[in-house]
Amino acid sequence: MYLGKVYVSYKPSVFDPQGDVIKTSLHQLNFQGVESVTQGKYFEIKLVATNLTEATANLVKMAEELLINPNTETYQYAIDEIEVL
Amino acid sequence: MYLGKVYVSYKPSVFDPQGDVIKTSLHQLNFQGVESVTQGKYFEIKLVATNLTEATANLVKMAEELLINPNTETYQYAIDEIEVL
Repeated sequence: MYLGKVYVSYKPSVFDPQGDVIKTSLHQLNFQGVESVTQGKYFEIKLVATNLTEATANLVKMAEELLINPNTETYQYAIDEIEVL
Repeated sequence: MYLGKVYVSYKPSVFDPQGDVIKTSLHQLNFQGVESVTQGKYFEIKLVATNLTEATANLVKMAEELLINPNTETYQYAIDEIEVL
């Protein structure tokens, strides 16, 4: 069993209104040191695969076919084998 | 300058309808090996602080005072010093 983590965020060129709202709120809560905030999506996917290579290939395909909007979003991922309890 | 990353997800006891919908969609796209999917929020926060300890303390406070709903969500974080270009 493998645990894939996918972190989706807006491309730098895309304005992130939600991140801006959060930055303003943080300033109002007296967190003056905040320079910028971006908000994105975070997925944890448990998947069965024969090996790490296959699991990784599947995770990338899932991200690009369903989890992200390739026009406005970019993503990073991490994947590890996990024990099934 | 520091870059804090906050990963917010539902507590295990909380039903995640969005994650369930995504799992169904992945099965329909023929990703049969998918066992479970959870969707959460992912924040990247750039902040100024005098040292890593202060930056970390501020990031934790931000997460707990604004970014998460402590009743239903839990979070992990990572923080690193970054160069200002």
